[in-house]
Amino acid sequence: MKKFRDLPTPCLVLDLERFESNLDKMSRFVTGRAVALRPHTKTHKCPQIARRQIARGAIGVCVATIAEAEVMVRNEIEGLLITAELVGQPKLSRFVDVLKRAPDTMLVVDSTEGVSELQHAVQRAGLQAAILIDLDIGQNRTGTKPGEPARALADAIAQSANLRLKGICAYAGHVAHASGFEARRQKSTDAISQALETRDLLRRAGHDVPILSVGSTGTYNIDSHIAGVTEIQAGSYVFMDVEYRQIGSATENIYADFSPALTVLATVIHRSQGKAIVDAGLKAFATDRPFGPEPLDVSGVKYEFAGDEHGRLIVENPSQPITLGDKLRFMLPHCDPNVNLYDRIHCIQGDDVVDVWSIMDRSGGYF
Amino acid sequence: MKKFRDLPTPCLVLDLERFESNLDKMSRFVTGRAVALRPHTKTHKCPQIARRQIARGAIGVCVATIAEAEVMVRNEIEGLLITAELVGQPKLSRFVDVLKRAPDTMLVVDSTEGVSELQHAVQRAGLQAAILIDLDIGQNRTGTKPGEPARALADAIAQSANLRLKGICAYAGHVAHASGFEARRQKSTDAISQALETRDLLRRAGHDVPILSVGSTGTYNIDSHIAGVTEIQAGSYVFMDVEYRQIGSATENIYADFSPALTVLATVIHRSQGKAIVDAGLKAFATDRPFGPEPLDVSGVKYEFAGDEHGRLIVENPSQPITLGDKLRFMLPHCDPNVNLYDRIHCIQGDDVVDVWSIMDRSGGYF
Repeated sequence: MKKFRDLPTPCLVLDLERFESNLDKMSRFVTGRAVALRPHTKTHKCPQIARRQIARGAIGVCVATIAEAEVMVRNEIEGLLITAELVGQPKLSRFVDVLKRAPDTMLVVDSTEGVSELQHAVQRAGLQAAILIDLDIGQNRTGTKPGEPARALADAIAQSANLRLKGICAYAGHVAHASGFEARRQKSTDAISQALETRDLLRRAGHDVPILSVGSTGTYNIDSHIAGVTEIQAGSYVFMDVEYRQIGSATENIYADFSPALTVLATVIHRSQGKAIVDAGLKAFATDRPFGPEPLDVSGVKYEFAGDEHGRLIVENPSQPITLGDKLRFMLPHCDPNVNLYDRIHCIQGDDVVDVWSIMDRSGGYF
Repeated sequence: MKKFRDLPTPCLVLDLERFESNLDKMSRFVTGRAVALRPHTKTHKCPQIARRQIARGAIGVCVATIAEAEVMVRNEIEGLLITAELVGQPKLSRFVDVLKRAPDTMLVVDSTEGVSELQHAVQRAGLQAAILIDLDIGQNRTGTKPGEPARALADAIAQSANLRLKGICAYAGHVAHASGFEARRQKSTDAISQALETRDLLRRAGHDVPILSVGSTGTYNIDSHIAGVTEIQAGSYVFMDVEYRQIGSATENIYADFSPALTVLATVIHRSQGKAIVDAGLKAFATDRPFGPEPLDVSGVKYEFAGDEHGRLIVENPSQPITLGDKLRFMLPHCDPNVNLYDRIHCIQGDDVVDVWSIMDRSGGYF
């Protein structure tokens, strides 16, 4: 059987034991609670992983793009929630195609123009679409404002013959990585209170609002205790990354509720006084955070970006000798955009490569 | 004919007129000079572009990885220089396969262990390999130190029956983006002087050193005037990016020797007071620089990253109205890692999509 250290580097390596333990832990956490799990698959873009999440009780999956929706539907994954607005052609016609194959697919909307476009597209196909209102509870990104603007949007959806209002999607992306559990709890609770008030307003206006979809890996054990939240969208828990480890958990400085399961494997291609160079740089790691990857197999070395295909290890007090040709694993700085750099995930048990999963076509994706 | 504004977004759009003008300009610059062009294809990873560079007089192409070498060889591109060390299996066996199909392929090396590994691999296959010494002239990455360490390495290569020393590769990555033409000229000249001294040392030791390969898009018109430089490796000039435009040219504050030809097309998916949200974020743009993309089609707006799939446009004084569904083009922050995020380049003439080129498999690439 192929050993992972014989893989061409750089490549993604998934430790199945840690990965499955992450899945199990989230599954156990949700089981028996009043909240469901609809994990976000923009983290992995991988049907094999979505299938494992559903097998462990997830009620469906979130996707961020129409291409992700297409990949999941093509792989018989059900219960899709598309969490970003689909505006204009050709996305709306692709949405209609998804809807034909997966009629329970839900889509967010945040403007009356959007409602109108969507109504026309869905009506033309003779279909019905389930809609969530995308609510801006502080991220300042997409989403309608809470209160009256949301109520007006709910009215517009209710007046659209081929759209059915199913609830509210309120993602607090600005809260997910807030440092310190108590600070995060306070911020998330404040943000979600706006969604609850809006939900109540919509109900008083006669709308049915069965779904309130919120949350992240950073707030899964906060939001799930808030009465009225019906589902959480955590995604990163399957892989984990340096960023999440820094935010602290309810009990520890390091957020260790879930284990770093996904790493980049790199080769030492140069070794000289005080430094080693690995073959993994700007094209191998997410670069959107002010910190880089962290070595998994060795301590006492620090990674610095050193170009498109190179990383520099400052070797200070290494816990093991570092020599030319060594294969080292690194925790991802930020898992979602890091996974997006690769086409494949190599699954390992111990040293053995036991499976290879495809990551979807990242930059388009067609049926 | 398909219009580029109907493409699914985000996607890469290449303005062929600008692109070909960039190719022509570099070709005219090199013609008749004592220096040749071996452009770096890590920028584009695209055989169609390599072929156009060679058709305009390039003597071959540089590649940064064995996977890029494989793609180029598979597409009959000749004159390869692999500019990063290949260490350990499976890369060396893949190199031998490349060498079988393209015997003129050159590879860099920077250590005696590397020479020894390479000699064994090439000998076992009954082949000969042309080698350049990778020289560290200040980037503090890979490369042997100038002077005696380089001479010792040259001796080791000369003593290897299946390796032939062809010269020196001295990439000054730390100089390529130095701001201000005069400062850049001074720094590049200083760096390359180390390579020239080492070349002279090797010659005095009896080694043949026909090739001195240096340079970048930032220094093409500096290094090509330095006696002894035989070829330059510029890559980014084909596409250009925000980073290069900031460094200034010999005559202007904006480096406009080459035109921004490659852009990301995005859709406005949300519009509200003072802001617009586009569907292109951390997964659509290179994020390794402290600045983001810049709008090509509109001024008076500023882009901010707003998540994996979102960018926020701060709309202050827009040169045209920005409305829901608008398609906008953005100059890439840093072209090489930005291209690496996509599978395809859509080529346009005016508004028409006239061709689609594939970017190679980014995370491995096999024959």
